[in-house]
Order: sequence, then C-alpha cells, then structure tokens
Amino acid sequence: MPKRLGYLAPPGTYTEEATERYDSEAVRVPYPTFRAVIDAVRSGEVDEGVTAIENSLEGAVVDTLDLLIQEATLHIKQEIMVPILHCLLIKPGTKSEDIKAVYSHPQALGQCRRYLENSYPNAQPIASLSTAAAVEQIQKSDVPAAAIASKRAGDLYGAVVLATDIQDQPGNTTRFVVWAKEDHAPTGDDKTSICFDFDEAKGPLVGDTPGLLYSVIGEFAQRGISMAKIESRPTKREMGRYVFLVDLLGHREDAALAEALESVRKVTSTLKVFGSYPRITP
Amino acid sequence: MPKRLGYLAPPGTYTEEATERYDSEAVRVPYPTFRAVIDAVRSGEVDEGVTAIENSLEGAVVDTLDLLIQEATLHIKQEIMVPILHCLLIKPGTKSEDIKAVYSHPQALGQCRRYLENSYPNAQPIASLSTAAAVEQIQKSDVPAAAIASKRAGDLYGAVVLATDIQDQPGNTTRFVVWAKEDHAPTGDDKTSICFDFDEAKGPLVGDTPGLLYSVIGEFAQRGISMAKIESRPTKREMGRYVFLVDLLGHREDAALAEALESVRKVTSTLKVFGSYPRITP
Repeated sequence: MPKRLGYLAPPGTYTEEATERYDSEAVRVPYPTFRAVIDAVRSGEVDEGVTAIENSLEGAVVDTLDLLIQEATLHIKQEIMVPILHCLLIKPGTKSEDIKAVYSHPQALGQCRRYLENSYPNAQPIASLSTAAAVEQIQKSDVPAAAIASKRAGDLYGAVVLATDIQDQPGNTTRFVVWAKEDHAPTGDDKTSICFDFDEAKGPLVGDTPGLLYSVIGEFAQRGISMAKIESRPTKREMGRYVFLVDLLGHREDAALAEALESVRKVTSTLKVFGSYPRITP
Repeated sequence: MPKRLGYLAPPGTYTEEATERYDSEAVRVPYPTFRAVIDAVRSGEVDEGVTAIENSLEGAVVDTLDLLIQEATLHIKQEIMVPILHCLLIKPGTKSEDIKAVYSHPQALGQCRRYLENSYPNAQPIASLSTAAAVEQIQKSDVPAAAIASKRAGDLYGAVVLATDIQDQPGNTTRFVVWAKEDHAPTGDDKTSICFDFDEAKGPLVGDTPGLLYSVIGEFAQRGISMAKIESRPTKREMGRYVFLVDLLGHREDAALAEALESVRKVTSTLKVFGSYPRITP
C-alpha cells in the first residue's frame, strides 16, 4: 500500500515538490495549516507529514520550530533539500510587455526583487498566500498579470513559463523535515535534532549564569561532535528567555552522542530529542 | 532643536509608541520600509531611527537582524521595551453583535486567536499590513468590522475601544533598537550587541570543526560575561552556514569584554560590534 504523506496546501508549492522528491509513489494529502499536518500524522490519518524548516536566504521557518518544541510524540525521520527555482508564469496569451501586476508569496517576491525591478519596473508586486495561489490569481486578474512560482505550479494550473531561474541569488534551497511516529535507524552518516531549555532561576539568558549554555555546547565539542545548526526561539513566558534548537552530526544511538545527551539532560530543564535521520548534503 | 527620529510607517503602530517612550519631544518621521529608516539615519535626514528587533512571543524580527549584519557604519545606541496591549477597535456606531470581520497584522491576529474564537466565532480574520492600517480599513469596510491594534491607533484614526488587553498570553513585549551614528557611553549596567561568522573552510556549521563556536562562547563565559541572547541567521551564501548574533552583558569599553572581543576577533572571519547601550530590564 502506498505511504500517505500530509503537507501544507495547496498543491503546486515547493512543499508538494519536497514530498515528491521524498517518495514519488506516496499518496499526497494537502492540509490547510502546519498544525493540521502534524495532527494528521499523530492521529494516523496519514503515515508521515512534511513541513519546511529553513530556507538558505530567509532562515528558519518558525512555525515548524515552534511545533517541534511543543510536540510530545512525533519525531523527525528524514530531511529533504529542495532547490528553489522560481519561474515567471503567465496565462496563455498574456503579452510580456502588458504585465501590470506580479503575484507571489512575499518571500518569493523578495527573492526576485532585482529581477522584477529590471525587467518589469512598471508591474506592481502583489502578495499571495502561497506561490501556487499566485498562479490561480493570475487567471482571475483584471489586468495582465504574472506569477512567481515553480514550473510545477505552472503545469498544474495551466500557466505558461515566461522566464526560468529568476531569483536574484543562486543557491536558494529550502530544507524540509518529515514528521513520523519513529525516527530513522542509523546509516553511518546521520544528523540528530534536539531542543533544550533551562531552569529560569539558573539561566539562560536573562540574568544568565555565565557558562551554562557554554557547558552544554561543550558536552558535544569535547566529544568531537559537530553542530550543524543552533537556533533560539522565545520560551513565550518572558522576554529574554529562549529554547535552543541544535542539529548535531551523528545518530542518537552513537556512543559518544548518547553519552553527551545524558550529560546535557542533567544541566537542562527540558531536553527533547526530535530524532536522528540520514544527513543530506545540500 | 528637537531630535528627528525615523520609524516604520504608518503612525499609530507599536513602533511609533516606542519612539514616544524613547523621546516624547522628538519629531517623528515615518518611512515606508525598514531599509528606508536606516538610510535616513545614515544620510543625516533624521538623527536616529527605531526598528523592532524581537517580540517575546514571535521571536526575532529578521529584517532588523539582516540589516544589522549588512550595516557598515551605524550603531545601536539604545534598546526600548514596549508592552503589547492589543485592543479591539470599531468605527463609532458599530454594534459588537454585528461584527463580521476582524482586521489586523497576521501576528496580532495570531496573538488574539483564542479571544476571537471565543468572543467572535463568526467574524472572519483578515490580514492587514500593520495594526494601524487595520484601523483605517474598518472605516471603509462593506460589512461591520473590528480591528486589533493599540489604543493609540484608535485615538489617531477615530476608532472606539470595544475591549482592551485581548491578547491570549500575558507578558507580550516587543524590544526595539535605536540606530545612530554612535553608540552609548558606559552607564554601569549595559549590553553589547555583536555578530560574527567564520571562515567557511573552518566552520560553522556545515562540516563544522567541533568546538569553533564553543571556543568563541568560551571567551565570554570564562571571563564571567553573561550572554543575554544568541541568534543565528543564514549567511545567504550556502545552506547550513550562519552568522551568529550575540547580546552580552557589559559595555565594550569594560576591560574584560574588550579583551574577550579581541580574542574572538582572532578566530572569526568577521566580527562586528553593533554597539553598547544601557540595559533595560523587561
């Protein structure tokens, strides 16, 4: 039976492309919000769920980070890297010199700002809820309009590609994570994602006891364990208190990493291991 | 002559409230974008500029972080803390039982989600560009509508307060920074904001040399210097490479901090000291 994969609606976004790269045989089930994707995995409505976690230009997708911090039962089973190749799409018959409006998600508009200023200085940028929604919107636009989205979205919604690879900076990549009830068995080249926070009387970070975060990072560094990422998110209880999210190279079952996590558990208030999964080199 | 203070338009936002808390005598000059605020300080069109840098629920304001990373000449001179007290505002004469739509910035809608679900389950949330713009929009709405914004925005645009303090979580605070040509002289209770990154051959973080970030944090921890914040932002060159932004307790002219910064300069590729300024306890 094919796997059922939840993802953020609508079809035609880079998230749907990530699900296809991950498992092209899977049945893809769109959900209206990040939280609905996670809930569907937890309830068993789908087997796994895919959400974006960071982009190489925009940084962290904080909705995913906050859901991970709150989540009690699900794990990260896999990461997926998707190169973001924006296209300029039009309704068949639209002439490029007539374009008066360009629809897209604000991040995509931002990533193609210089291209638009140079090639379509008189077109007005208009924000859409997603890159795929932008392609739907050009079909209904009163004025000749273009959308910035993936080629895939163009195919899906019957739009024509006017230009490809229009983002201002090369190397634009989005990283996605696969949520599942269990993480991945060791492969020999893995990553482990964790989060931790501290007893507020001790630190970090308002009135920080110098060295508490340092000692946690030291548990990894002194064992030769590389960090692939460190992020902080507010605890939402008080300005200046944070939860730290760290990606480590290695599997949580590796002896050194397992030992480091045990030591970190002693000095932190909460330590959550989101899971271990094969490392993808971008 | 009163000081001229640039801030993000429109008037009536929490940013304008921050400028008022900082200097109620100042002439306030609204600009359309964060970047325009900074450019106006650099050119001398205004003396100083104010932008939001983090919220206790939403986390970092990444536009401000990215502008700081890029900025070559300006400094942080002050921080400002503003408690976010959302109000439900209506056009005079609107009846609360008739409200069909609620306008606000998506963050403010998110921060009052439970209140809206309980008190106005049939009203549709509609995204606005700012809380102040939402108050303007209810004046033109076809259906009876409310806006979520500050009391100040209500006063400014002639709206009436229907309910105050409607955010779901207490303690919602936004921190702002004041950009100027020079930072602040020592006061004895200061903070220093810096950012740094590393030679990509050495680390962090793709293929990280374990311990490089650890050794930087150690320069502060071993001298008893507390960290008040650590954030990472993508370098925008390659997925998995970051710039780190750290707030430290102390002034850059303090002997221990000056010495630590000298040591950090040796192991980092770029070290920028955004400035030292009086610490405000939230």
